[in-house]
Order: sequence, then C-alpha cells, then structure tokens
Amino acid sequence: MKNIYIIGVGLIGGSLALDIKKHDHKVKVFGIDHNENHLEEAIQLNVIDAKATYEDLKNADLVILSIPVDAAVNEIRKVLDLVSDDALVVDVGSTKAEICKAIEEHPKRRNFLASHPIAGTEFSGPKAAILGLYQNKTNIICEVEKTAFKLQEQALKLFSDLGMRIRYMNPEAHDKHIAYVSHLSHISSFMLGKTVIDKERNERDIFDMAGSGFASTVRLAKSSPEMWTPIFKQNKANVLETLDEFIINLQKFREFMHEDDFEAIYSEMKNTNHIKDILNGIQ
Amino acid sequence: MKNIYIIGVGLIGGSLALDIKKHDHKVKVFGIDHNENHLEEAIQLNVIDAKATYEDLKNADLVILSIPVDAAVNEIRKVLDLVSDDALVVDVGSTKAEICKAIEEHPKRRNFLASHPIAGTEFSGPKAAILGLYQNKTNIICEVEKTAFKLQEQALKLFSDLGMRIRYMNPEAHDKHIAYVSHLSHISSFMLGKTVIDKERNERDIFDMAGSGFASTVRLAKSSPEMWTPIFKQNKANVLETLDEFIINLQKFREFMHEDDFEAIYSEMKNTNHIKDILNGIQ
Repeated sequence: MKNIYIIGVGLIGGSLALDIKKHDHKVKVFGIDHNENHLEEAIQLNVIDAKATYEDLKNADLVILSIPVDAAVNEIRKVLDLVSDDALVVDVGSTKAEICKAIEEHPKRRNFLASHPIAGTEFSGPKAAILGLYQNKTNIICEVEKTAFKLQEQALKLFSDLGMRIRYMNPEAHDKHIAYVSHLSHISSFMLGKTVIDKERNERDIFDMAGSGFASTVRLAKSSPEMWTPIFKQNKANVLETLDEFIINLQKFREFMHEDDFEAIYSEMKNTNHIKDILNGIQ
Repeated sequence: MKNIYIIGVGLIGGSLALDIKKHDHKVKVFGIDHNENHLEEAIQLNVIDAKATYEDLKNADLVILSIPVDAAVNEIRKVLDLVSDDALVVDVGSTKAEICKAIEEHPKRRNFLASHPIAGTEFSGPKAAILGLYQNKTNIICEVEKTAFKLQEQALKLFSDLGMRIRYMNPEAHDKHIAYVSHLSHISSFMLGKTVIDKERNERDIFDMAGSGFASTVRLAKSSPEMWTPIFKQNKANVLETLDEFIINLQKFREFMHEDDFEAIYSEMKNTNHIKDILNGIQ
C-alpha cells in the first residue's frame, strides 16, 4: 500500500495514521476532514503527510473511514463509488449493523471491510492521536466473507502490524454485545457526572472531596457528544435493553438498602467481585 | 511520637504505616488485627515492625483505627478507655457522623480526631499497602475543635508530613457530600458490573470486546464488600438520596432515547462535559 486516505483525522483515524506511518516509512498518508483546522493541526503534528479531497480517492490503496457513525453511513457509499477496483475501504465505527446494511447492495461491496477496533480514550481531535494505541487491542471484524479475499489479507496484515488481535462477529451480535461492554458504561458515566454536578451548583466545595474512584467512574463523561449521540441513535434498541437492566439492578440495590437488608447488599457486591478476573485481561 | 499502633493492617492502615516509617526511622509501628495472617504478612512485607494487642495500647503515642466503619464505632470506645491521657487516637473511616456520636460523651473525647483521608484503591489487605498513597490527597477532618489543641497539632504535622491537604467539615456535611463523590460511584460500578456479568452467563465471548472504558467504570466493583456494606448501612439516608437522583437521571436519559429525542441526549452529554475541569484537580 502506497497511498492511504484517512477520512476523519481525530483520535481514532489520527492514531491509525501515526501507527501506519511508523510501520512503513514509504506510505503517504492523506487526511480528509470537513474541519480545516483539524487538517492543519494533523499536518503540524505529523499525523498526516498532506490533506486531500474526495476527488483524490481514486488514487487510494486504502481508505479508512473514521467519522461519527451517522456520517459514516452516508459517506461510505460515496467513498465506494469513487475508489478504484483494487482499493480497500475500512470503517472503524462503534456500531456495525447500519453501515453493513447501507452498502449491502453496493457494486463495490467486496472492497469494504467493517471493523471496530476496541481502543480509544475520552479525548478527541488530532491532538488526541496516540502512537501505539492499538497495541494488544481487540479488533472486531464483521461479515469478513463479503470482502474480497485479497483485500481481507491486506487488512489482516495491517491490523496484525499494528498489534491487534482479531475477533469475527456478525454485525447484529456486535451491536448487541458492545452495548453492554461499552455504550452502557458511557451513559452510566455521563449520568453519574450529571447527578454530582447538579448537586454541586449549591455546594461548590464537594469536589475537593472527590478521589480517584470518582474520577475513574466519571472519566467517560468527558467523551464527545458529537461522536456518541449517533452511536446511541443507531444502537437504540440494544442500548435501551442494557439501560433497562442497569436501572432495574440499581432499583433492587436501592430496595435492599431501603429495607435494611444489608445481607443482600453484601451478596450483591460479593457476587460481582469476580469482575476482577474478567478485567485482568483488559487493562 | 515513638510508639504507633495501627488497628486494622489493610490498604489504608498499612499505607499509613509505610509512610510514617519512611518519614521517621525512630518510630516503632505495631499492628493489631483480628486476622493473624494479615499480621504475619504485614511483618514480612515490612509494613509493621511487630504485632501487638489491646493491652499494649497504654504505651501508644498514636493509635490509628483503620477497620470497617461498623467495627470502628464499637472499637473506638474500647481504645479510648485503654490509651494514656497524652495519646492521640485517629480514625480514618469513610463515614463520620456515627463515630463522632459514639464518643461524644467519652471522658477521653479530646484524645480523638475524626479524619477521612480520600485515598485508596480497589484492593485490600496488607499486600495492597502503598508507599506514598497519601501524597497530594485530601484529608477531611471533622469536629477539630473537640480534639485537644496539642494533639491537633501532632495530627496536623503527621498529615502534612505525609503530603495531605486538610479540609475541615462537620460530620453530617461530610457524610452527605461523600455519598455523592464516593459512595454512589461504588454502587454504580457494582451494578454496572452485575448487569454485564448477568448477560455474560450466556455469552462468554463478550468480555473480549471490553475496552479500557468499561474497565474504568467497573474498577470499583472489585472493592471489598466487608468494607462497603457497613459504609452503606451507616450512611443509608444520604446514599439513598444520591441513588434516587442517579436513577431518575438514568430514567430521563432512557425516556429521551425511547422518544427519539436525540437533541436532548446530546444536551445531556454536552452539559456534563465540563466534568473535565472538575476532574483536572483530582487525578
């Protein structure tokens, strides 16, 4: 691959650009972004080599689409219309069902690979790009059989070069499970932050009392609403299911407390403690 | 101070022991714990110099009570009964109203200082003790005026040596605000962990999909139920208030999603984003 185009030069696209450039000094990485400042910033930070437009996509060996998931569903068709027959087009969004459906019948369907690298931070924009972000992270690939074999190979080599392990999944299963292990955590963080901030209007001092535990649980409340609103919209049914279960569990905990059933409170916590073992594989 | 007794040689007490010993090589730190294994472990790890019993407390210059808050409320009276007239007794529990009430009328009330160092991790036991845990952390002191002036001075010097900044607060205000910035985060983490684990029973693979965001929001679900059950019990009214507000906010978010009001979803997140500025002071 010689010419790589990143559409959306933010945390995810920018970090991919940094890793790809580090791994292969001969590639040229172009950025496309509706935010001109981000493009200038990305050039200054050496995240991309130059800026480009959709007209240049005919020269692309690889296009990475790393924009909010609502925009991605619209842009992916335009991108496939423009690329050459040999180009690989990869998206990296947090939802997979709608994008896979959007290009189901596209004549260049076999040029597309749907992926979701489980990596990121709560920050955004080219400044947030990090070298090595994808090392030892999971990348979920959907409908791999619908991508041309030669392009599958190219994609898997790229992901492997960046240090990612691969999991294959259908788009519906991806969207259902990611609602539990990612989307719900964001809602919980945002609403926990809101609950405490609402209180703080009258009690300015209380944040002096906050420690690292609070910081950890509300960290994701720094995330970009521009990115997350379309995710919740696209994954509405699954997210509502997780949210309902979470609320029911909180209400049960509340009832146990209300009824002074602290043996039940103890059990609820004890039974959840083995999250330790589960988390050991993550951090 | 020469002879320091730590009752409860876990994460909090053990970390205090490590810091105190590092700062003053002449002190001797004794450990008292109903768990004999913890005492042996603490000696092996050099967290304490030797083990002791309540009978030795008459020799104490300083006693630190670092045990679960329900036990602390019982033990504090016994400890005050046993110490000399010049000894300083400090507790470090996450709730302050009940312990202050328990010794209100005690003849040695002036030997006691109620404190809550906002520091810790999700781990427990002497192995979890960390040198430097209290550096740059906040220590909340309650009813300082009820402690003998000379002993206040000793305590403040100790906390300052360990790198802590001090905030003064009455016990009721402490318990109310700490419910928001600490206790609620723990419930949220535990119930988020439970929600996802319940799902996992049928779907073993989903944790492969979990990233650092999930890990961060459920980190506190590793915490000790032995420590946290009594905290929720003692601070029941305040914790219920925070939990009700949190549940209401989650339900509102759910309703906005259900009604496809994604402008409201966006606003909810945008309005909470300034948690960034609040958190800057913490981590």
